Amino acid sequence: MKIKKANESLTVMTNIVLPNETNSLRNLFGGELLARMDRCASISATRHCERRVVTASVNHVSFNHPIPEGGIVVLESKVTKAFSTSMEIYVDVWLDDPIAGKKIHTNEGIYTFVAVDEFNKPVPIPKIEPETDLEKERYAAAQRRKELSLILAGRMKPQESTELKKLFCDSKKEN
Amino acid sequence: MKIKKANESLTVMTNIVLPNETNSLRNLFGGELLARMDRCASISATRHCERRVVTASVNHVSFNHPIPEGGIVVLESKVTKAFSTSMEIYVDVWLDDPIAGKKIHTNEGIYTFVAVDEFNKPVPIPKIEPETDLEKERYAAAQRRKELSLILAGRMKPQESTELKKLFCDSKKEN
Amino acid sequence: MKIKKANESLTVMTNIVLPNETNSLRNLFGGELLARMDRCASISATRHCERRVVTASVNHVSFNHPIPEGGIVVLESKVTKAFSTSMEIYVDVWLDDPIAGKKIHTNEGIYTFVAVDEFNKPVPIPKIEPETDLEKERYAAAQRRKELSLILAGRMKPQESTELKKLFCDSKKEN
Amino acid sequence: MKIKKANESLTVMTNIVLPNETNSLRNLFGGELLARMDRCASISATRHCERRVVTASVNHVSFNHPIPEGGIVVLESKVTKAFSTSMEIYVDVWLDDPIAGKKIHTNEGIYTFVAVDEFNKPVPIPKIEPETDLEKERYAAAQRRKELSLILAGRMKPQESTELKKLFCDSKKEN
Amino acid sequence: MKIKKANESLTVMTNIVLPNETNSLRNLFGGELLARMDRCASISATRHCERRVVTASVNHVSFNHPIPEGGIVVLESKVTKAFSTSMEIYVDVWLDDPIAGKKIHTNEGIYTFVAVDEFNKPVPIPKIEPETDLEKERYAAAQRRKELSLILAGRMKPQESTELKKLFCDSKKEN
Amino acid sequence: MKIKKANESLTVMTNIVLPNETNSLRNLFGGELLARMDRCASISATRHCERRVVTASVNHVSFNHPIPEGGIVVLESKVTKAFSTSMEIYVDVWLDDPIAGKKIHTNEGIYTFVAVDEFNKPVPIPKIEPETDLEKERYAAAQRRKELSLILAGRMKPQESTELKKLFCDSKKEN
Repeated sequence: MKIKKANESLTVMTNIVLPNETNSLRNLFGGELLARMDRCASISATRHCERRVVTASVNHVSFNHPIPEGGIVVLESKVTKAFSTSMEIYVDVWLDDPIAGKKIHTNEGIYTFVAVDEFNKPVPIPKIEPETDLEKERYAAAQRRKELSLILAGRMKPQESTELKKLFCDSKKEN
Repeated sequence: MKIKKANESLTVMTNIVLPNETNSLRNLFGGELLARMDRCASISATRHCERRVVTASVNHVSFNHPIPEGGIVVLESKVTKAFSTSMEIYVDVWLDDPIAGKKIHTNEGIYTFVAVDEFNKPVPIPKIEPETDLEKERYAAAQRRKELSLILAGRMKPQESTELKKLFCDSKKEN
Repeated sequence: MKIKKANESLTVMTNIVLPNETNSLRNLFGGELLARMDRCASISATRHCERRVVTASVNHVSFNHPIPEGGIVVLESKVTKAFSTSMEIYVDVWLDDPIAGKKIHTNEGIYTFVAVDEFNKPVPIPKIEPETDLEKERYAAAQRRKELSLILAGRMKPQESTELKKLFCDSKKEN
Repeated sequence: MKIKKANESLTVMTNIVLPNETNSLRNLFGGELLARMDRCASISATRHCERRVVTASVNHVSFNHPIPEGGIVVLESKVTKAFSTSMEIYVDVWLDDPIAGKKIHTNEGIYTFVAVDEFNKPVPIPKIEPETDLEKERYAAAQRRKELSLILAGRMKPQESTELKKLFCDSKKEN
Repeated sequence: MKIKKANESLTVMTNIVLPNETNSLRNLFGGELLARMDRCASISATRHCERRVVTASVNHVSFNHPIPEGGIVVLESKVTKAFSTSMEIYVDVWLDDPIAGKKIHTNEGIYTFVAVDEFNKPVPIPKIEPETDLEKERYAAAQRRKELSLILAGRMKPQESTELKKLFCDSKKEN
Repeated sequence: MKIKKANESLTVMTNIVLPNETNSLRNLFGGELLARMDRCASISATRHCERRVVTASVNHVSFNHPIPEGGIVVLESKVTKAFSTSMEIYVDVWLDDPIAGKKIHTNEGIYTFVAVDEFNKPVPIPKIEPETDLEKERYAAAQRRKELSLILAGRMKPQESTELKKLFCDSKKEN
């Protein structure tokens, strides 16, 4: 199976925040943004695997800055690392305000998708080759995030996580 | 500030999956479910704080089982633990199928909300008193999940996490 | 066919009023509320019959109090009485305002649903056993409401309604 | 205050049933239709009163025939009778199928609206002058329907309803 | 194949502008209006052809006046001229304000639809017989608009357009 | 006022076709696509002008290929030419199918937007500098399209259009 570049899965989803999508403070509803991020990530996943994909988990989404009604929202997603049948996808969200001349990084989300066949069974997927510094940095830390996320979901015991034990316990010595 | 019971924030959101909300496999779109879970969690948070609240982060959402079009989806959310101005909320999702006589636990989500005043500044919130076994179990592990989540978001260094260091490094000895 | 308790069909549908669902006074649109009530009632009907159901008629819905944008709306529905293939369902609607510490009963709706088989033909359904005072009171008056509603729809002649003739004409003597 | 003709409030709302608006049988959701009927009726009410209006109650809606996805739905509403500050509105619904050359009367709904001033207080409205046979027939029976509906809502006692007592008790003698 | 009158395809689509459909100036979004006009035109096309139809092109839509949230919008569409398998449809849009007693012509759109069989192949359609002055005027200029539109789309070379060459070059002499 | 490059207004809007947005053939509804194209174009216009903008007209949209439910749709828009207060925007639409390894150009749309101040009055906008061959080609023909469109809308008389008269009448000689 061929190796693909992280950038081949780049997906850009620009849109305007409609009144319909805002809460009573007239900012984009958290849930609406989560839905858009999921759709954006699923396109990146499809582009990487050239297969039907399903959301396996949302590992972390931060909400740093509100996005007002009428604002231009730009989502950019890329596959950061591919495991055997699953892949981690990063979604970055910006509020682009050409009138004020500002572009603010409002959110960052980490999703896991799985490629499936016509019987909904997981299938192997291509590996990722990171190129830019940011792609390499995110690639390098993906294994650790995967273990953190499995522990958070109660699917892995702390003592099984060699990567994390090293991180926490070695760091003890470092200090 | 008074202490409130976990169950006082219980929110039940039952609904039918409409064609509008499904992907091409005719299952509820991951993003749609994330949006519903966020709304459900925000009601629990409001009920606990009696204040306006905003989503701070989604810490983990698992997708264990697809939810088909026409299915009855039941979301139940409760505040599990309150910190100084933020609180952790668990959302459990079931697919209820009275015709087949089955009820399947399809998803579990962990959200963090913050209570804010009229200037969008965080404000102190009541503490939580867990009552049932499940409430107590989730309450007990909330601090650890918070630290895991902060590390996952890159906002805390592993060596600062006393709770987690204990977990990973003591467990090493236990084995 | 077994007899079921009214409470077994209880359905709770909590949600937030989004801007999308409001009229120009920023209150929940009457039509939107009717749609939600219909969905809530249809879940109660499905839970009672364990069958596919369709709306047969809306018998009465009152609008007592506006529900503002951003408000938390709670719908609760239960089957009140089952006839041979149709059943009456009550939907109560509250505006829950935890910030102001108030809960207002805003609407009450009466719907009729019919259980159908795979050829869309009506099928027999279980009887209802009311337990609480309110369940008993609504059960007792359901036959009268059914006849009133059939006359309102032009499907029954006043002289065929023994229940109502008794009500109106006996009451004449009582005065 | 001037008298207006029933036909001056005629509102025609033609539209296509989108997948978004259907249940799992691929027919228009009962709730969606109720929402459309409410909007159509509110336009008729506004046209009659030349005032802001709000839904006071839904008195009866029948569901006689399913409306399939992709179907052309035609709603026609008119004020049938005006009381002091409220008015009754009839909404007729047809499924128009030009390809099969058929037009089916699928639903009939009876709504009550109230005209309000800027403080949301009811205001007097113009009287109705019916012209066609159907307008006259619906006008004539509106008082009786109003009383039936008030009794159904528990807002009027049967013995207060002179119109209905006459109907039920006189009709006894007629037979 | 029979000839049909322009008025037989008349479609009236009245509705209220919901908050959901407005931009940040609280006016109906251009795109929302385009979507409604397309649906209205597709019903006129279906009524004329008694066939399944698909949008072939939007030839021109003007935006003359904003339509505010809560406003009553009336769309009226009619087939203006039928070619062999395609037809031109005019959609007129009004803002109806019964409270202010005004009705403003806000938009005019020209769409082309094609009738298709079950294999999505174009099929012949009935001719149009215009009756009113406006119908006749629009019918007469349809051929010219079709050629202009084809040139605009880059599908016809100016020198192939006999109708337009006459218009531009003869008019030169007229002046 | 500075001159800006066409590419500075590039807007990419990738999304998945949801069931909600399809017609009964399970293809993206023409109207839905028009709405998306309008939103995409409005972002390009805002990015070029750094001003609030409104849709002035849709000059032409072609529908060459259906876009199926579940498909990935990519819209790309750019300002092609700026006039004094208005600008022409091209929107290209592709159906991207990574699973089949195909990318089809399905639609092309030409929109006119106007930049407005806070009183909704048109304001001057920056000029465009085209760079690529396609940008130059579209820039060059924009004046002609503008005149064609004004004639199509009945806002310009053929004899006033020097650009078009030249095109049609000179071309006569060329043949």
